[in-house]
Amino acid sequence: MPRIIHNVDTPALVIDETIAQSNIERFQRHCNDAGLKLRPHIKTHKSIHFTSQQLEAGAAGITCQKIGEAEIMAAAGADDILITFNILGAEKLQRLSKLASVITRLAVTADNATVIEGLSATFADHTRTLHVMVECDTGAKRCGVQTPAEALTLAKLIETLPGIEFAGLMTYPDKLPSNVPLQFMRDTVAELSAAGIDCPDVSTGGTPLMWSAATEGVFTEYRIGTYIYHDRSMLERGICEESDCAARVITTVVSRPTDERLVIDAGSKVLTADLLGMEGYGHVVDFPDATVTGLSEEHGVLQVSADNPLQPGDQIQIIPNHVCVVSNMFDQVHLIDAQRAIKPMSIDARGKVN
Amino acid sequence: MPRIIHNVDTPALVIDETIAQSNIERFQRHCNDAGLKLRPHIKTHKSIHFTSQQLEAGAAGITCQKIGEAEIMAAAGADDILITFNILGAEKLQRLSKLASVITRLAVTADNATVIEGLSATFADHTRTLHVMVECDTGAKRCGVQTPAEALTLAKLIETLPGIEFAGLMTYPDKLPSNVPLQFMRDTVAELSAAGIDCPDVSTGGTPLMWSAATEGVFTEYRIGTYIYHDRSMLERGICEESDCAARVITTVVSRPTDERLVIDAGSKVLTADLLGMEGYGHVVDFPDATVTGLSEEHGVLQVSADNPLQPGDQIQIIPNHVCVVSNMFDQVHLIDAQRAIKPMSIDARGKVN
Repeated sequence: MPRIIHNVDTPALVIDETIAQSNIERFQRHCNDAGLKLRPHIKTHKSIHFTSQQLEAGAAGITCQKIGEAEIMAAAGADDILITFNILGAEKLQRLSKLASVITRLAVTADNATVIEGLSATFADHTRTLHVMVECDTGAKRCGVQTPAEALTLAKLIETLPGIEFAGLMTYPDKLPSNVPLQFMRDTVAELSAAGIDCPDVSTGGTPLMWSAATEGVFTEYRIGTYIYHDRSMLERGICEESDCAARVITTVVSRPTDERLVIDAGSKVLTADLLGMEGYGHVVDFPDATVTGLSEEHGVLQVSADNPLQPGDQIQIIPNHVCVVSNMFDQVHLIDAQRAIKPMSIDARGKVN
Repeated sequence: MPRIIHNVDTPALVIDETIAQSNIERFQRHCNDAGLKLRPHIKTHKSIHFTSQQLEAGAAGITCQKIGEAEIMAAAGADDILITFNILGAEKLQRLSKLASVITRLAVTADNATVIEGLSATFADHTRTLHVMVECDTGAKRCGVQTPAEALTLAKLIETLPGIEFAGLMTYPDKLPSNVPLQFMRDTVAELSAAGIDCPDVSTGGTPLMWSAATEGVFTEYRIGTYIYHDRSMLERGICEESDCAARVITTVVSRPTDERLVIDAGSKVLTADLLGMEGYGHVVDFPDATVTGLSEEHGVLQVSADNPLQPGDQIQIIPNHVCVVSNMFDQVHLIDAQRAIKPMSIDARGKVN
């Protein structure tokens, strides 16, 4: 008989709800104890169901990266949303304006005057104020102002312009521990204070540094996504154990062309080509001899030892390198509840590129 | 005024129909001249619209990788479909059986006895015969039998079992020119012939080797996907010119945090992390100084020269590294017709993982 893990058509993304719930609650307790507001990023699960669980556990609000994600979560009841992205262009600004009307508090980030001026022009006559945080580049080398002086300039601009309100500072720190984010934020808050500008919030985040999340006398809020499912990148960093990994790709061996090569029905259209600095495309559970050495769109190629028992028809489970991007590849996940029953659930905000 | 290429909300995938049509017709002529049946792979466009154009231009049928893709194309009128994948498992076999009932000719590939036995068990009492090709590994090191002798064994098994019929040999060759596929296929056809087994078709394919596609006295059919849109990987191999690239990602500059760093609103959720052995995540049209050095899910980071004129709000267009996987990231593309009018079109078979 073939090895069957779950009665699902493969490839499938299966989420153990008990593990996900435990991950939500454990980090909520960490933030409560640390005196940090927790603002989970929905990009990992893209799901109304899990957004609700995060809010019920005590989250202060949610983080989205796209207006399309925020619209879906707002319709489902999320009423305090931060979109951590520079919003530009007439169509997006119009959607942002509509979104602000239907929730209690909407905030965005900005790192340049063009963005801030567009936001102000849109919200100048709005019944609601848009909260704008200044994004600071503290080492991740993506968006963000480069110096506290630049942050001050933008905060002043926000304070000057109508329709928008300065809501504080935001950074997405580099994945490795560093004193730069703390120092940058301390210096900026001091400069703001010297200029008579109050800084309501200082928001940082990231799953890689989750267990050292603390206010350090500056930070007020932590944004985090991957922690709900975890993945191979967190496993390899020692942030979680295999038993904390709630999301697994169930895939079927479709071929064993040689003694040491298996082919599975999960390729880059499922596992994605994200390496995140690692070798191979996922952690094969139960088979330490197996490594996913290559992916094409619908095939995964595994190197195994010659005595590996897997044959065509057998299922295996893979903890993906980067689970957020894998959530985006499926129209639905399969949830396993505490009674081990399995049921499909739509990924509500999958594929929201705008 | 910002630089606007198309009046679309970004990121967007834009397809120039005139270029796509020209790519379809040009390679159809090549195959006609070479005496090869052309069987385009729909994985690149995943679209009923372009499937119809390929069939109208003279394609003998289509290739799909997933049953879900084939179901959609069958419903739209494709009636000769080859699924180049080992189909296993009760749910997939049942769908395959239904699919066979509604089209003229359904074929699949197989490279092991487990798959062939499952196909026969499903089709033994079917009103239609399932055509089964034996997949041969001629250097791509994915699926496929390793020797002509193994191919002969499987062909004999197919001939022996009820409900299925041996339809020939199939290979997905390595991307670099090699004599192995030709030699492997010649040897296998000879072994089959010596055993009294007719080999109706020998199918090969791949855009990288498209311009040398020829029967060479053995091959009867060519399968090809990327050629309709082309992409950076084909551009770098010299298979096409920039003007042959029908698919471009339109993206907006959202930040210029430093003189030499731009951030765009297209990340791995749009461009994907596929490198295909290249450096950087796409070819930036019009700005030879710009390289896409990094992607996170919603951000692309570009290195540019300090005198690059791009600023937040400007659009740029990127020819992606691997266009097939990019098609899968969007719910819709925007088509540009011969009059330069632009209109959205659903990507019908996007996200069909099963």
